[in-house]
Amino acid sequence: MSGATIVTLLTDFGSLDTYVAEVKAVILRRAPNVRLVDITHEVPPGDVRRAQYLLARAWKQFPSGTVHLAVVDPGVGTGRRAIGARAYDHFFVAPDNGLLSPLLDDAEVVALRVPEDASPTFHGRDVFAAAVAEVAVGQPLHTLGSTVTDPCELPMPRASRMNGQIVGEVVSVDRFGNLITNIPGEWCVGGTVSVGDVAVGPVRRTFRDVPPGALLAYVGSSGTLEVGVRDASATAALGAQSGAAVTFSA
Amino acid sequence: MSGATIVTLLTDFGSLDTYVAEVKAVILRRAPNVRLVDITHEVPPGDVRRAQYLLARAWKQFPSGTVHLAVVDPGVGTGRRAIGARAYDHFFVAPDNGLLSPLLDDAEVVALRVPEDASPTFHGRDVFAAAVAEVAVGQPLHTLGSTVTDPCELPMPRASRMNGQIVGEVVSVDRFGNLITNIPGEWCVGGTVSVGDVAVGPVRRTFRDVPPGALLAYVGSSGTLEVGVRDASATAALGAQSGAAVTFSA
Amino acid sequence: MSGATIVTLLTDFGSLDTYVAEVKAVILRRAPNVRLVDITHEVPPGDVRRAQYLLARAWKQFPSGTVHLAVVDPGVGTGRRAIGARAYDHFFVAPDNGLLSPLLDDAEVVALRVPEDASPTFHGRDVFAAAVAEVAVGQPLHTLGSTVTDPCELPMPRASRMNGQIVGEVVSVDRFGNLITNIPGEWCVGGTVSVGDVAVGPVRRTFRDVPPGALLAYVGSSGTLEVGVRDASATAALGAQSGAAVTFSA
Repeated sequence: MSGATIVTLLTDFGSLDTYVAEVKAVILRRAPNVRLVDITHEVPPGDVRRAQYLLARAWKQFPSGTVHLAVVDPGVGTGRRAIGARAYDHFFVAPDNGLLSPLLDDAEVVALRVPEDASPTFHGRDVFAAAVAEVAVGQPLHTLGSTVTDPCELPMPRASRMNGQIVGEVVSVDRFGNLITNIPGEWCVGGTVSVGDVAVGPVRRTFRDVPPGALLAYVGSSGTLEVGVRDASATAALGAQSGAAVTFSA
Repeated sequence: MSGATIVTLLTDFGSLDTYVAEVKAVILRRAPNVRLVDITHEVPPGDVRRAQYLLARAWKQFPSGTVHLAVVDPGVGTGRRAIGARAYDHFFVAPDNGLLSPLLDDAEVVALRVPEDASPTFHGRDVFAAAVAEVAVGQPLHTLGSTVTDPCELPMPRASRMNGQIVGEVVSVDRFGNLITNIPGEWCVGGTVSVGDVAVGPVRRTFRDVPPGALLAYVGSSGTLEVGVRDASATAALGAQSGAAVTFSA
Repeated sequence: MSGATIVTLLTDFGSLDTYVAEVKAVILRRAPNVRLVDITHEVPPGDVRRAQYLLARAWKQFPSGTVHLAVVDPGVGTGRRAIGARAYDHFFVAPDNGLLSPLLDDAEVVALRVPEDASPTFHGRDVFAAAVAEVAVGQPLHTLGSTVTDPCELPMPRASRMNGQIVGEVVSVDRFGNLITNIPGEWCVGGTVSVGDVAVGPVRRTFRDVPPGALLAYVGSSGTLEVGVRDASATAALGAQSGAAVTFSA
């Protein structure tokens, strides 16, 4: 019951062009039995921070051995390295622009070779997809390039705690208008939450704990504090976007 | 030649977040050999009616034994039940909010257990996907929860017939601007169709039967009456949306 | 290591309706072991030229034996033929409206039979998907219909060369705002590029060769000349769309 190797795909290629299909074709030529799972291709063009957030959230749900292709690559054609990494028994392939930064503390990292005939503007297909396929068929990571000891660092914004006050920020706004923060849920015991100057109130368990249309704070499905509105959109109600300050006062 | 069990997915999760991928990851961990087929994830947030229409149309095309996950769940976190059902030799997993209502006349229905550690705001992943996986690997439905005899009822709007006049409504507008009604095609013999006050004319076989740019009524690909414009959009031409009255007069 | 037969799908069905899922269901009923790969379903409704461009670019990336379904079919229900073709050891199934035109020079082409009970407005499901499944399970093309010797011709716009001047046009604008032309990259040696009246400069290798925000011309990942802006959008900078004239002067 073990199934085929899973390959996830996360890019900013959108759904109007052929780029995603070209990447998949390259993978399937070499690794015809993998299972392809799209995470999203709708990352805003070049938004490495958004890709970093989405990957950091999604990869954990997949089984060990999964290979994750993550290509948001504004620096394609500028000499940035392409890297492959093994971390937490998963594999990751991405440009070395910080996208993988949160995952690399104890990782094995290599700089992928760029084939002579690779398109200088589409490494997604000619470098990253090709490397994903090699990993998926069982090629050891170290055979794909030379060791990297200084991958690009792009720390995710972290919440801070001082004197019973926690300060974090909105790191994502989802389709439903919920504000997802970087404040760990387990830090939030017995206090109240604010977004900017707006008091949201105590941390609730779930939507049923407030009336329809009311704001609430709760611990979301990725384990961090979220702010929502029952049956409506918190981003619309508060005018808050990614980066907005969120505080928890005990 | 029987192939893997098919699992279809229909949600309002959109394509910008990781929610769909998280659902798929949970399914694949337990049921690595299923075949995943997206129906759509672009249901407007919380639009149970739209999901109901789309599922009622799509499921019939799939082979017996297919498992359908349908999660449009504005009541997540409010105590609504989660249900699994077996009907017409297919399986369905959804919130008990009426989404499955048209399918449950002779169905076996159970209330799915909600694990202790399920996120109270993401049952799509922690309740529904987990149940889909169990069904897909062959667990009998009755082992997943206790029998439900009173599932939520949300009847689909039905067309009515009286004295040779049929009154129905637009139940969907597709990407091409065609107006899809709930009037069974076989009811429409030898009369004329109107949308609101606008006379459309007799029921044609297909687009070739009118000149480019002309309105026409025809029996659509799901077996009900539709109104379109050859090479253009009927919703644009008529200003008609879902809910618009459609009449057929013999 | 050969894997299942790949079936690619390219349509204008969008992602809001059930049409794509219905097509996939029909294919999987008959050919449960194929590998489905979406190219795109976001072709603007009825835009045969766009579909032609995307398919001509994407198919080459897939292995021999791949079956390509391409349905942008404004003429459905008007008597246009449905065709299946074998070319370059790939299979193609599409309406006979010119979509496949660039591929048919040496192809075997048949006119697909239209089943009696096919919906006259949804050949994507009832004619094309059914034919794709037959091809995918190994039915010889000639068993699916009668030979066609005069498929619809819709030549792609070609660049021309005269006296060291090359004149082409923008054939696609991608998500990043890059302008993709029909000028073969190997024609462009030692000269300068203009879009309309705007001088872009010499052909560079890649983005690193100009400063951020600067226009550049380069040979793109499909082998033709492209015009981009480093870290920004050329279509926004130049106001140029598909059809815009592009010239190369040696």
